[in-house]
Amino acid sequence: MNIKTFLPLAAAAALVPALGLAQEAEEVAVSAGEAAAHTQFILNTLLFLVGGFLVFWMAAGFSMLEAGLVRSKNVTMQLTKNVGLFSIAAIMYWLVGFNLMYPGDWLIEGWLGPFFSPTVLEAVGVGADGVDVTYASVGSDFFFQLMFAATTASIVSGTLAERVKLWPFLLFVVVLTGFIYPIEASWQWGGGWLSEAGFSDFAGSTLVHAAGGFAALAGAIVLGARKGKYGKDGKVNAMPGSNLALATLGTFILWLGWFGFNGGSQLAMGTIGDVADVSRIFANTNMAAAAGAVAALILTQVIYKKVDLTMVLNGALAGLVSITAEPLAPSLFQALIIGGIGGVIVVFTVPLLDKLKIDDVVGAIPVHLIAGLWGTFIVAWTNSDASFGTQILGFVAIGAFVFVVSLVVFYLIKMIIGLRVSEEAEVKGLDRAELGMEAYPEFTNG
Amino acid sequence: MNIKTFLPLAAAAALVPALGLAQEAEEVAVSAGEAAAHTQFILNTLLFLVGGFLVFWMAAGFSMLEAGLVRSKNVTMQLTKNVGLFSIAAIMYWLVGFNLMYPGDWLIEGWLGPFFSPTVLEAVGVGADGVDVTYASVGSDFFFQLMFAATTASIVSGTLAERVKLWPFLLFVVVLTGFIYPIEASWQWGGGWLSEAGFSDFAGSTLVHAAGGFAALAGAIVLGARKGKYGKDGKVNAMPGSNLALATLGTFILWLGWFGFNGGSQLAMGTIGDVADVSRIFANTNMAAAAGAVAALILTQVIYKKVDLTMVLNGALAGLVSITAEPLAPSLFQALIIGGIGGVIVVFTVPLLDKLKIDDVVGAIPVHLIAGLWGTFIVAWTNSDASFGTQILGFVAIGAFVFVVSLVVFYLIKMIIGLRVSEEAEVKGLDRAELGMEAYPEFTNG
Amino acid sequence: MNIKTFLPLAAAAALVPALGLAQEAEEVAVSAGEAAAHTQFILNTLLFLVGGFLVFWMAAGFSMLEAGLVRSKNVTMQLTKNVGLFSIAAIMYWLVGFNLMYPGDWLIEGWLGPFFSPTVLEAVGVGADGVDVTYASVGSDFFFQLMFAATTASIVSGTLAERVKLWPFLLFVVVLTGFIYPIEASWQWGGGWLSEAGFSDFAGSTLVHAAGGFAALAGAIVLGARKGKYGKDGKVNAMPGSNLALATLGTFILWLGWFGFNGGSQLAMGTIGDVADVSRIFANTNMAAAAGAVAALILTQVIYKKVDLTMVLNGALAGLVSITAEPLAPSLFQALIIGGIGGVIVVFTVPLLDKLKIDDVVGAIPVHLIAGLWGTFIVAWTNSDASFGTQILGFVAIGAFVFVVSLVVFYLIKMIIGLRVSEEAEVKGLDRAELGMEAYPEFTNG
Repeated sequence: MNIKTFLPLAAAAALVPALGLAQEAEEVAVSAGEAAAHTQFILNTLLFLVGGFLVFWMAAGFSMLEAGLVRSKNVTMQLTKNVGLFSIAAIMYWLVGFNLMYPGDWLIEGWLGPFFSPTVLEAVGVGADGVDVTYASVGSDFFFQLMFAATTASIVSGTLAERVKLWPFLLFVVVLTGFIYPIEASWQWGGGWLSEAGFSDFAGSTLVHAAGGFAALAGAIVLGARKGKYGKDGKVNAMPGSNLALATLGTFILWLGWFGFNGGSQLAMGTIGDVADVSRIFANTNMAAAAGAVAALILTQVIYKKVDLTMVLNGALAGLVSITAEPLAPSLFQALIIGGIGGVIVVFTVPLLDKLKIDDVVGAIPVHLIAGLWGTFIVAWTNSDASFGTQILGFVAIGAFVFVVSLVVFYLIKMIIGLRVSEEAEVKGLDRAELGMEAYPEFTNG
Repeated sequence: MNIKTFLPLAAAAALVPALGLAQEAEEVAVSAGEAAAHTQFILNTLLFLVGGFLVFWMAAGFSMLEAGLVRSKNVTMQLTKNVGLFSIAAIMYWLVGFNLMYPGDWLIEGWLGPFFSPTVLEAVGVGADGVDVTYASVGSDFFFQLMFAATTASIVSGTLAERVKLWPFLLFVVVLTGFIYPIEASWQWGGGWLSEAGFSDFAGSTLVHAAGGFAALAGAIVLGARKGKYGKDGKVNAMPGSNLALATLGTFILWLGWFGFNGGSQLAMGTIGDVADVSRIFANTNMAAAAGAVAALILTQVIYKKVDLTMVLNGALAGLVSITAEPLAPSLFQALIIGGIGGVIVVFTVPLLDKLKIDDVVGAIPVHLIAGLWGTFIVAWTNSDASFGTQILGFVAIGAFVFVVSLVVFYLIKMIIGLRVSEEAEVKGLDRAELGMEAYPEFTNG
Repeated sequence: MNIKTFLPLAAAAALVPALGLAQEAEEVAVSAGEAAAHTQFILNTLLFLVGGFLVFWMAAGFSMLEAGLVRSKNVTMQLTKNVGLFSIAAIMYWLVGFNLMYPGDWLIEGWLGPFFSPTVLEAVGVGADGVDVTYASVGSDFFFQLMFAATTASIVSGTLAERVKLWPFLLFVVVLTGFIYPIEASWQWGGGWLSEAGFSDFAGSTLVHAAGGFAALAGAIVLGARKGKYGKDGKVNAMPGSNLALATLGTFILWLGWFGFNGGSQLAMGTIGDVADVSRIFANTNMAAAAGAVAALILTQVIYKKVDLTMVLNGALAGLVSITAEPLAPSLFQALIIGGIGGVIVVFTVPLLDKLKIDDVVGAIPVHLIAGLWGTFIVAWTNSDASFGTQILGFVAIGAFVFVVSLVVFYLIKMIIGLRVSEEAEVKGLDRAELGMEAYPEFTNG
């Protein structure tokens, strides 16, 4: 065979493995590409799971904070309310909230329309059928979002402590976590009119914190102040919390949980950009909390000549609420300013509320509503996509909705079944009067 | 050169880069495929690490729950027992338990056969030698599994509180975490006869919780009730816990840790199917806990006309135990039913135990043993691979083994070194009598 | 067309798709390779984030431990100091510390040289510009490292409790977290002279723990003992902690956080080797803590005939400090020995310190300084890259620097603004005297 004959034959012979290799390589590469897509799905889901359990932990934080800031005679009740509200939120958000908040997307099975279409998870072993999935698992998203509904309710329980009855309060939680919160949150996070209007609220300074604060405000107005809190002469009587170690623990728990709250709200961790953004959020969140605490530390020293630990704790929390509307865009220095002003706000608005004779046992309204307003407003400073006007619009819209509906619901509850314990029970303490069980039966004097 | 000559030459010339490209592409693709496999290994390991630290955290949860539910005179002792039992579990599970529970698989170095072959971790920098690894790292698996052994022991310490001596109790923990738990758990998770029989216990309603409950029951029987608990007239004297804030904190810690307990028991997170399953498990676990709490909330209101916080806490825990045998298969609605019935069980069985004069200080037997039975049994409802009969078989087999061996061990300890503190010490409190150190030296009255 | 003509034509025709496939495959494969690199970046960053929030949690652990070990009259102050010191550390480490500790690397924007170049995070959405990043995100690294600076300060607050004034203490924290810690840590982790000399300190037995212990020692010397602690007859008066449940909770929190402290110090989780190493670290860290607790448990029983819970807690912590210098190389058995000896050290050195009349309220010097020495020294046993001599050199160098500078700073503070509260305030309690706010206003007797 001469060379002319040999070459084409050799070429043809060689082509077979070349083609085979190329095809095989492509298949492997495609499957590697798929694996990369799957890795993104896994990492996004993981963010929701870790973020979710951190935000779950905030339920314990609120419980400890509130149990530490009420008087010992009301601690068992405060704990019961907190365990109860979280549990009810978990059920209501499944039963109604999730599908109401994200209409369409998750309406896998609607029974009676959006108001009664319990959440249905994906089947076991997603992807085993070869059908690809994107984003993150429904279960992880539901788990994460549910914690935000519960947080909204936790805010209310602190303000109304020491005088609201258990079941009427839990009834309000049913409405809040099943309907009020999901509806207002859907305006933004469900792709509703506020998000179309350009409102910006990254992790919920308004949607969660101010909303909770407005519900708390409505409740405090309907309920009235604790007996003896405001003297006839205008004097405000301090009713010191029974356990500041618990309150501090609660604050640390909330601080920790907030990394999940804000970090998880990036909603993705499957690219280097997303995970670096989550890191920015962690660093900014921590800075805002630290700045809020230091601001309150310095300010209470300057104003009262004595540092006030409960103000410092609330300062840290106000710093956290302040950065929550935009934890990503700010530089660390901006986060320090935003959080620090949050801390300043608390120091000045806690006494203001007392002047208005609005009795907020743990300071939740200054921390969540007023710092929430500040945080929502200031987004326009660091995020060029936001405008101060739209930020105020969103805050006012959600505030008005939550406040008015909550006011109506609280009034209805008050009219129909009663909202407040008897004076006698209030004096005796809700633990003995309502529950027959003291939190510290061996400790308290008298 | 004419075309006939040119073409084959061109083809041959072109083939070289084509072949080269294809080979190079294949190599890259293969290495990408390898990377994907490695990513799975990393993610599986990460699940064990995160799951493991969450279950570790449950040790703190049990400590706080139990410290909150005993009287203040026994708190230091209860804390000491809990720190001690966890530490001993960590050592015994390394020394014996792990290799006894997973025979063969991990027997890298056996000294004296399976009963004394301490766990040996993989070398530093696994994979650096080019040898591939699969599944997850041994260290992460050991870390995760060890926490389950410790959990089993934590259950026992609550029941026996306020009267068992420190060292005899810790001696029992040596036997429980080194031998009893690993042996019975190997029947299922070590690929033993129960797993071959078709028994199904995803994360350990029977293997961990009921087993701990049976050991606790054996201990309670051998030990007898606390002095004064049961009056001669059949009256049950309440001995209220000293710190319900701690008990609530403990419950929240356990609830949080349970996401690791059940979620980590998926044993893999490296595929979209696995991570979506972990998400299902998180959502179902949370739902069952919430349902258990709400069930106890409502039921105690209905039965006793007053909500009982300790029942609500135990209701949440019973919900968690109930879902542990099968947290994956149920829908959220089924998880609600399963967990809710768990809560109901607690409300009815806590008084039942008192009628039997079995003194279980924290209610661990209703929560872990009886709700464990319920959870194990009901697997067959949601998981078609399980049958009610086999579920009962597994529960009875493990229960009988753990109960009988524990009974023998407790009796032997009682006979040889004594198990119970003196009456005088019990009255005085174990803290002062046995340890000379009070938990709250400045707080308690009298 | 004859075969000779056909073949080359066919070959040429076939080449086009073959080449195309190969190129396409290569592109996909390259992008898959990129994805794998990105996955490493994400996983490394995730390790810092999870490790970072776990170490953050240690701030709560120190708070609870210290609040539990001081007398109730000083609890609010101790809590305030802890929240304050963490917040100040967060600000100082941003303002100065981070760029001082890692010179060059992160000096993105220096204002006034290394002593004033606040940390600047990466831009939002890193990688979107197509520029690749390596290692991990700056934000996550900053977040993680910041927690170590805060930990160093937390150690000091425990020793100086019950007598140091708030603001002077916080002023020291400014210097410690902004300058002292970053400078000495840069000698090793910033690639400085100690790392070049071959010193080995994986996660900071010397750099963090002994450094904190040396600063605490300097403070204790300048400050003097609490009034009444050491009688004229040489008698040491016990001043029992007010809340051992809190102290135990704090210890469990620290134990949990330590998985992040040591595990995160692997600095990478993107390969199977790295994640398996993180697993080794988790398992060894847990073993050392358990061994330290058991050693103290047994030893206090043997020596004092009564188990001492505070010693057991400090034993666990000493085990953790001991393994921190080298949590990777040891086998589980070696970790047990290293941690166990840490526990023994605590039992023997706590009374020793009292003999020297150095008043360390929580035992931080034995736990962090002396067990830190042990842990640093023994690295050479398990890590063949380390030598006993260089280990001692590093410990002495850092110890001398931190001790001398701290001594000077504490003296200056004492001279200029005063360091210690008045005798009257000490007797009355810092809470009422300095803050006007009690931690447990309803609990304490008298």
